[in-house]
Amino acid sequence: MRIIKLDEQSKKNILSDLLKRSPNNYDSYQASVDEILANVKANGDKAVFEYTAKFDGATLTADTLRVTEEEIAKAYDEIEDKELVTIIRKAIANIKDHHEKQLKQSWFSSREDGVMLGQKITPLERVGVYVPGGKAAYPSSLLMNVVPAKVAGVDEIVMVTPPGKDGKINPTTLVAAKEAGVDTILKVGGAQAVAALAYGTESIKKVDKIVGPGNIFVALAKKAVYGHVGIDSIAGPSEVMVIADETANPRYVAADLLSQAEHDELASCILVTTSKELAEAVSKEVDGFVEILSRKEIIEKSLENFGYILLVDTMDEAVDVANEIASEHLEIVTKDPFLTMTKIRNAGAIFLGEYSSEPLGDYFAGPNHVLPTNGTAKFFSPLNVDDFMKKSSIIYYSKEALEPVSSDVIKFANAEGLTAHANSIKVRFEDK
Amino acid sequence: MRIIKLDEQSKKNILSDLLKRSPNNYDSYQASVDEILANVKANGDKAVFEYTAKFDGATLTADTLRVTEEEIAKAYDEIEDKELVTIIRKAIANIKDHHEKQLKQSWFSSREDGVMLGQKITPLERVGVYVPGGKAAYPSSLLMNVVPAKVAGVDEIVMVTPPGKDGKINPTTLVAAKEAGVDTILKVGGAQAVAALAYGTESIKKVDKIVGPGNIFVALAKKAVYGHVGIDSIAGPSEVMVIADETANPRYVAADLLSQAEHDELASCILVTTSKELAEAVSKEVDGFVEILSRKEIIEKSLENFGYILLVDTMDEAVDVANEIASEHLEIVTKDPFLTMTKIRNAGAIFLGEYSSEPLGDYFAGPNHVLPTNGTAKFFSPLNVDDFMKKSSIIYYSKEALEPVSSDVIKFANAEGLTAHANSIKVRFEDK
Repeated sequence: MRIIKLDEQSKKNILSDLLKRSPNNYDSYQASVDEILANVKANGDKAVFEYTAKFDGATLTADTLRVTEEEIAKAYDEIEDKELVTIIRKAIANIKDHHEKQLKQSWFSSREDGVMLGQKITPLERVGVYVPGGKAAYPSSLLMNVVPAKVAGVDEIVMVTPPGKDGKINPTTLVAAKEAGVDTILKVGGAQAVAALAYGTESIKKVDKIVGPGNIFVALAKKAVYGHVGIDSIAGPSEVMVIADETANPRYVAADLLSQAEHDELASCILVTTSKELAEAVSKEVDGFVEILSRKEIIEKSLENFGYILLVDTMDEAVDVANEIASEHLEIVTKDPFLTMTKIRNAGAIFLGEYSSEPLGDYFAGPNHVLPTNGTAKFFSPLNVDDFMKKSSIIYYSKEALEPVSSDVIKFANAEGLTAHANSIKVRFEDK
Repeated sequence: MRIIKLDEQSKKNILSDLLKRSPNNYDSYQASVDEILANVKANGDKAVFEYTAKFDGATLTADTLRVTEEEIAKAYDEIEDKELVTIIRKAIANIKDHHEKQLKQSWFSSREDGVMLGQKITPLERVGVYVPGGKAAYPSSLLMNVVPAKVAGVDEIVMVTPPGKDGKINPTTLVAAKEAGVDTILKVGGAQAVAALAYGTESIKKVDKIVGPGNIFVALAKKAVYGHVGIDSIAGPSEVMVIADETANPRYVAADLLSQAEHDELASCILVTTSKELAEAVSKEVDGFVEILSRKEIIEKSLENFGYILLVDTMDEAVDVANEIASEHLEIVTKDPFLTMTKIRNAGAIFLGEYSSEPLGDYFAGPNHVLPTNGTAKFFSPLNVDDFMKKSSIIYYSKEALEPVSSDVIKFANAEGLTAHANSIKVRFEDK
């Protein structure tokens, strides 16, 4: 891995390189996506089935769109490693436990003159979860999207995922969906799935919100339907930053950096360290690991594109660059990781100390692995239970409470030229 | 106002009519907006000043872009009605009080084997607030956007608003901004203001999130930059629904319906009632009020376009249609408004009883008046303190906690074909 002494210019270059990976820079696909959205909106099922034939090579009808209970039962039989089902159940229990702690209650405050103000918090009614298809299954991602929705109390969770050419879904995906509590599984993917969930078709009911990762077509489609429905966020390529000092174990740091690099050629892994010795040792360990890892080619390209070891003079400098880059995953492996953590403003998830390796969070610990990428941790949060609930303000004023403030409200309304607003207060005291 | 007996067909027609008002249906302006965004991104200040000259007729430079302390002091002098300043201060105190109750704390849970999981909650660093310009000032809208950001602890609040031809801003707007605690006021509006806040220019620093209402250009620009920065939501025309039974005062109900109708020709006001007598009485009161209200022309068009009195047989039916339409404002004026409220799932703000008129919430009570419109209350919330804060997950595992689950994590990672993920756990126990 390249080792760079961090200065203003190198920082600027790296920040600008990293931002190039944003899905916001793929406007060239927008026209195709817009066409798919418009076609599904106008032609419903017909368009959905045509795209599924064209892009997935599968022939579906309104009768075969839904995964049946028989197909799910068969999927359990098809999973060779039965222990995986047990591990999935353990992961679900951890995710559930952590997300239950996020649950907010409706609340109100009241005043003795007859005022009650509050927030009513209600789960969303119907949520669509996008799950990528293809040969590999990513059950962890499915769990991270579905379990928080279940915890929130969403009435119906509709999962969409592209079928194989044989019209089938990966059995591990089906089992994970069943275990997590998905209500309906539909064999449809791509922008056409997003369109169907956003607008509704003859066979697919409109949802309130669409979550879950997908390729660039899915990401652009989600952004386009934002406002018609809610969406989680626009996910970019994965990234990890490790802040480490001389106390860190270079072998662990190297292994953790590579666990992100293997995701994607656009993935980014960055070590920021005050220790030149650690920098060199990590670089050497990385070289060693790369040779033995199965996804060597992806890793090498990712390291070449967006892998950096940045040397800084002080921990404060490390914190500053971490806050500027706002990494999806941030590991802090220093003498006092909790102290460093207090200074971090911007990061999706913060992993503390030498045994909190990032993949622990991906699969098992419980906090969500759907995290803000590409600098968006400055304003977006990890997926959480709040994303599946919404608030309504509650306002109650008695006559006794309204009367003394009525002239203030009338005056304010008139100052804005909104006389019908003023009138609505006025009529209530017009006898006087 | 037209009185309609609600049935499946009339409900479908009304829902479809209401949705036509969505900003999502104004794609025809998208090309102009995209051009402005691209130009500001490429040419910074130069483009911003050119658009300001073109659209607002004001000539600005990097030196005159910022409102000065002198201009603000002068604005206080220019306000004729000094009592308005006092009322603004009272409103700020109420808004602050209510929003402080929404403040969430960072939290963690821990386990004795050395596990700590939690959420670190951090305010956003820099937020842009859009405030519409023109002759009328809407200080209430400014307060509702700025005060929650202040309560959240945002470091810097940058307000943008289009200047008049003379390069000046309405004095009431300036005073409200000062009172609410805005840090920087910039004389720029339209899509060019959104672009400058999203991308940054020589004189305008990039923000993390953009909130606040604007015309269709502003709305489309906000949607386009979503992902580069956060945005609040895409606001559509205002709307109110009143659920009332025979106990309601028709004069109050009529006045409240009209307080929304006066906003905009696209505004919608709907009464849903079980009482034919009330329906007729309200319709008559509406006719009477329309004649005496200053915004008569707008009101008449709004009523003609999107004003309805819907007759239903039961309160349950009223609740169902309220949940389907998911109105921005919902007044419940029935024998037992609290009971009816428990059945409401979808509404921006719920006003209970005959003295909780909607304008009370617009100006004074404290809960936010920036509310989800156009059916989006099914998945969006009122603007609130959470919108100005974001979360980071915190994950700490000790060696003792990681070891017993290490084989599960390794197996899960391998099942997804992600061997570098597995390796990052494996290396930590490789001596064994």
